[in-house]
Amino acid sequence: MTGGKAGDERWLGQSIMARRGVAAGRVGRTHALTDDKQGEYHYTVGPYSKPVMEIEPGDRVVVETRDAFDGKIVNESDIPSQVLHVPFLNPQNGPIMVKGAEKGDVLAVYIESMRPRGDDPHGICCLIPEFGGLTGTIYTATLNEPLPEKVRLIRLDDQHVYWSERNVFDYRPHIGTLGVSPEIDSVNSLTPDQHGGNMDLPDMGPGSITYLPVRSPGGRLFIGDAHASQGDGEVCGTAVEHASVTTIRVDLIKRWPIDWPRLENADMIMSIGSARPLEDAARIAYRELIRWMVADYGYDQFDAYMMLSMCGKARLGNFVDPKYTIGAAALKNIIERG
Amino acid sequence: MTGGKAGDERWLGQSIMARRGVAAGRVGRTHALTDDKQGEYHYTVGPYSKPVMEIEPGDRVVVETRDAFDGKIVNESDIPSQVLHVPFLNPQNGPIMVKGAEKGDVLAVYIESMRPRGDDPHGICCLIPEFGGLTGTIYTATLNEPLPEKVRLIRLDDQHVYWSERNVFDYRPHIGTLGVSPEIDSVNSLTPDQHGGNMDLPDMGPGSITYLPVRSPGGRLFIGDAHASQGDGEVCGTAVEHASVTTIRVDLIKRWPIDWPRLENADMIMSIGSARPLEDAARIAYRELIRWMVADYGYDQFDAYMMLSMCGKARLGNFVDPKYTIGAAALKNIIERG
Amino acid sequence: MTGGKAGDERWLGQSIMARRGVAAGRVGRTHALTDDKQGEYHYTVGPYSKPVMEIEPGDRVVVETRDAFDGKIVNESDIPSQVLHVPFLNPQNGPIMVKGAEKGDVLAVYIESMRPRGDDPHGICCLIPEFGGLTGTIYTATLNEPLPEKVRLIRLDDQHVYWSERNVFDYRPHIGTLGVSPEIDSVNSLTPDQHGGNMDLPDMGPGSITYLPVRSPGGRLFIGDAHASQGDGEVCGTAVEHASVTTIRVDLIKRWPIDWPRLENADMIMSIGSARPLEDAARIAYRELIRWMVADYGYDQFDAYMMLSMCGKARLGNFVDPKYTIGAAALKNIIERG
Amino acid sequence: MTGGKAGDERWLGQSIMARRGVAAGRVGRTHALTDDKQGEYHYTVGPYSKPVMEIEPGDRVVVETRDAFDGKIVNESDIPSQVLHVPFLNPQNGPIMVKGAEKGDVLAVYIESMRPRGDDPHGICCLIPEFGGLTGTIYTATLNEPLPEKVRLIRLDDQHVYWSERNVFDYRPHIGTLGVSPEIDSVNSLTPDQHGGNMDLPDMGPGSITYLPVRSPGGRLFIGDAHASQGDGEVCGTAVEHASVTTIRVDLIKRWPIDWPRLENADMIMSIGSARPLEDAARIAYRELIRWMVADYGYDQFDAYMMLSMCGKARLGNFVDPKYTIGAAALKNIIERG
Repeated sequence: MTGGKAGDERWLGQSIMARRGVAAGRVGRTHALTDDKQGEYHYTVGPYSKPVMEIEPGDRVVVETRDAFDGKIVNESDIPSQVLHVPFLNPQNGPIMVKGAEKGDVLAVYIESMRPRGDDPHGICCLIPEFGGLTGTIYTATLNEPLPEKVRLIRLDDQHVYWSERNVFDYRPHIGTLGVSPEIDSVNSLTPDQHGGNMDLPDMGPGSITYLPVRSPGGRLFIGDAHASQGDGEVCGTAVEHASVTTIRVDLIKRWPIDWPRLENADMIMSIGSARPLEDAARIAYRELIRWMVADYGYDQFDAYMMLSMCGKARLGNFVDPKYTIGAAALKNIIERG
Repeated sequence: MTGGKAGDERWLGQSIMARRGVAAGRVGRTHALTDDKQGEYHYTVGPYSKPVMEIEPGDRVVVETRDAFDGKIVNESDIPSQVLHVPFLNPQNGPIMVKGAEKGDVLAVYIESMRPRGDDPHGICCLIPEFGGLTGTIYTATLNEPLPEKVRLIRLDDQHVYWSERNVFDYRPHIGTLGVSPEIDSVNSLTPDQHGGNMDLPDMGPGSITYLPVRSPGGRLFIGDAHASQGDGEVCGTAVEHASVTTIRVDLIKRWPIDWPRLENADMIMSIGSARPLEDAARIAYRELIRWMVADYGYDQFDAYMMLSMCGKARLGNFVDPKYTIGAAALKNIIERG
Repeated sequence: MTGGKAGDERWLGQSIMARRGVAAGRVGRTHALTDDKQGEYHYTVGPYSKPVMEIEPGDRVVVETRDAFDGKIVNESDIPSQVLHVPFLNPQNGPIMVKGAEKGDVLAVYIESMRPRGDDPHGICCLIPEFGGLTGTIYTATLNEPLPEKVRLIRLDDQHVYWSERNVFDYRPHIGTLGVSPEIDSVNSLTPDQHGGNMDLPDMGPGSITYLPVRSPGGRLFIGDAHASQGDGEVCGTAVEHASVTTIRVDLIKRWPIDWPRLENADMIMSIGSARPLEDAARIAYRELIRWMVADYGYDQFDAYMMLSMCGKARLGNFVDPKYTIGAAALKNIIERG
Repeated sequence: MTGGKAGDERWLGQSIMARRGVAAGRVGRTHALTDDKQGEYHYTVGPYSKPVMEIEPGDRVVVETRDAFDGKIVNESDIPSQVLHVPFLNPQNGPIMVKGAEKGDVLAVYIESMRPRGDDPHGICCLIPEFGGLTGTIYTATLNEPLPEKVRLIRLDDQHVYWSERNVFDYRPHIGTLGVSPEIDSVNSLTPDQHGGNMDLPDMGPGSITYLPVRSPGGRLFIGDAHASQGDGEVCGTAVEHASVTTIRVDLIKRWPIDWPRLENADMIMSIGSARPLEDAARIAYRELIRWMVADYGYDQFDAYMMLSMCGKARLGNFVDPKYTIGAAALKNIIERG
């Protein structure tokens, strides 16, 4: 994958989105969801916010996302606990309404490309008190002193992330938070769950399609939290958080009764579970993958269960959020055989 | 404790509610929150629903609660999975607005009495597929066949719960779900968290005061889910669910910065944590109790930590909901000494 | 309960131990397991250590237990991390061999009395780095600085625990660690599991009978870790640890196929689960209790499940050890009806 | 990697084993640990079993491992619960004593090659009641009916695993269980922990070096549980279990104070944590990796923490055993820079 753009798109024509989507692979109009047009960003994903636009299945949207700190951290001397205020973290663009979407349908979100936004692009990685994988938190409540607050300002462009003099990485972006509205709940944008949300899966970058179960009219798509690079688990609690221009195509699949988000790319299909403890996220992900193999690939339930025990792939999304995320995947060149 | 009514109320005059509340122990007007007045019940606790009434601190409200199944289960032959529809479970009365309540304040909810509602009162206990403590669930996802669905219709009155020919129990009611609105989230009424919600603590009955951290203007109090009797853990997922007439007094404590719900009765103070895994609920509850002992009872943090290791009490609220609840308590006759 | 002695023993004649034990309630010889006779204490519970004595079912043993720190902490200025060395913690008396005990049987251990040992009895409560409920540990691994080390030396006698000028408590002792050998494993004395071990249940004091599933010839009973007082959860990681003289009677129940430890006292029967996360300990405890009610009290499995949801009691043993412990109990006056 | 043999070995000369081992990269004598020589296999890893051989650092051992079922499952019609008897599962070769190994040292185990054993090689994958990731278990205790028992007999050779008519996989073997003795505990061979044991990490195959912290004289190396192929998580509880001929080289690194197992291959270094809940395994693995980067690669603790948040890799070992395993890794071409 070249930095931030999807590579070979030939598989797209054979994707579930293309085969089952209302748009049948056709690309529609392009909409600009600029920072101005967004106006007020959202910190909760639900049915109560005012839609920012309505699109047709197949349409493309060019989204200007803000960084997870809403741009409030600008210097390495900023103190996160002073400039950040829970729950006003991880601003989301949207909700984008998709014409015809109803409960029981699925939104397909293909990420076409991502690039850093602005003239002098940079990312932020920081340590926030009581947040992260290796610290006591508000849930894993301890009496230990919090870790020191740290801010790293990281220069980046659409090819590289200049982490330090010692280490330069490829720009390998993905979207940390992508979701549709629950039916009646409104969930803060830090929490992943059945609706998607803050899953922090490195696989959710350019060249991937995410499938999200619609629970309210129009689907109400929210998107944000671009990462220029992220390790499995996002262990310190933040990745390289940056403002991005992210281009997506959105299609609608009617009547696909899935319970949790799913993902597809050129090589694999993946089910995504979010829960605590972490083993429950793994259980959800693998059970959904088995159900998928049974429904769409002709496997017997227990054959699929046993076969995944010898060839399944698991990705640790994060184990730092209010809920943790694991994706369970099967390679297409395995499950599509026969 | 006589069935469903608070006993000796002399301690009330020395309660935190009386000492720090705006009403200073005075009882105000009595409001009737009948089923009719409630009209539409709520399945999510948040800032987006229309208030059902506004009261003054110190006022009394007589609330007609529905059972957790919204009255949809009426016979033992009813099949829960056919008549119940997630997320439309556990209907809540409210939101009740309390004049003057602002973020940073606390609502104090004293439960004065509870009695079964209706001419022919009864309760329901049932097994719902993939719900409960000893079954695979949507989170602890397994491939096992679900448990059989079962419904028990239980006759009861304000003295007894007639469980079976073999076993008759005292009517020992409590409120399963009590909460205030989060700041921007709206949380389904099955989930407990920092805002309170579905904590299922048997201690939350007549004679108890629950303290809830206000996060939005007016506090927005929600209440429902009366249990005629409940064991620690509510192991099968439901207790003796019944429609009730629950009388509460609500006061307002200004500027009491607490992070999680707290409870007080004649004998003890209790902090309440809700999280998964269950040990995190215990961690939260005990840490908050220590903080309370430091702030209000003059203990050193580590002295409190060590002393609770020899005299703390823990109550298992539930380990069946989307989040689990534990209350950690200290006896007043211990911590108030000295 | 008077300090450290079992009260009314009339129920004993109706206990499971009396009704099903080989000794049928008769008290046999009394053996002295003094510190001298014990010689080498054990830090692991298994089949590989040399028996310290063999007794007949029904015999009484007067055990001189050491404190959990093996007496190495003698002043409040001692630094736990310097004088304690993992895994040489929590010294155990035993193994005591019981004649005729075989895999598939159960040892019944009735605690007749406990009293502090020595002329100038005292207990120790301390904070050990990376150990306890409200701190990062070697498993819940964090980067936070450890908590400060603290030692409290607490004067006590067979009536009281003189915790501080402000707080004096009743002497309410129990045995923290009680177990039989696994079949082939040898488990450090800090870890509870199916064999019993470090369960830290306050109910396991004078007047209680613990039932332990025999897995190796003779049963190989280990005992130690007396607490003068302990709160639910033993939140700081240690209780009031003291050397004791603990008098037990041990009987043998042939062919009682139980998977986890059980406990009985005058008022209740309790099943004990030890696992992580904590909800698994609760699941084990309640499932075993249901199985017990089905096998010995004539309940239908799902009736028992639902009834415990309205009347079950749960005790938090500890949530600080390598595995956590929960006891689930039913009152005798409920389950014995009918 | 060609089927079961390590590929390019040039990196070996620069490995930690070569640079810090007593043998300094020299290969010593070759020992045959045949099934006959092993005689009695072991089901518990500890200090109490009789050594099977003693070797010098640098020596090679050709080990004939049995499959995890000890060869007791031979037909697809065999019923696991009838032929398998806990705790007599997962037989281990060893203990192999390494001359000079003492507490505080590390054994380095390089897997040189693996191949199926026997004339008509095959593997077994099966469903065992109450065992596996998507079923109630003895810990995650439920009342659901167990899953059906299933046995798959899978033909294989040193190139392929003939799973089904539809799916043939590469033979990509690894060792599921590799460990040294704890100091005083003896741990059943199903449980991973600080001593190694049943980690079920697919990375632990030919071309990898595992580093194990010595806790008893001679180290006492145990090895077994060869998998012909395994997916992340080993979701059904068993992989393609097969008898193997596994060739290892063992070296000794003096005075390397590590707390948990570590792994190295051509591309990465990995720390391995085993615990429940699964997030604790992730916490351990990442904390140990940070400590490693600080001690041996010159990173500041918090720099390493933040950098791994953008480039760390996590491998799910298993989430089905009594403890779960996660490996956290950093690529050598990243951390060796600068």
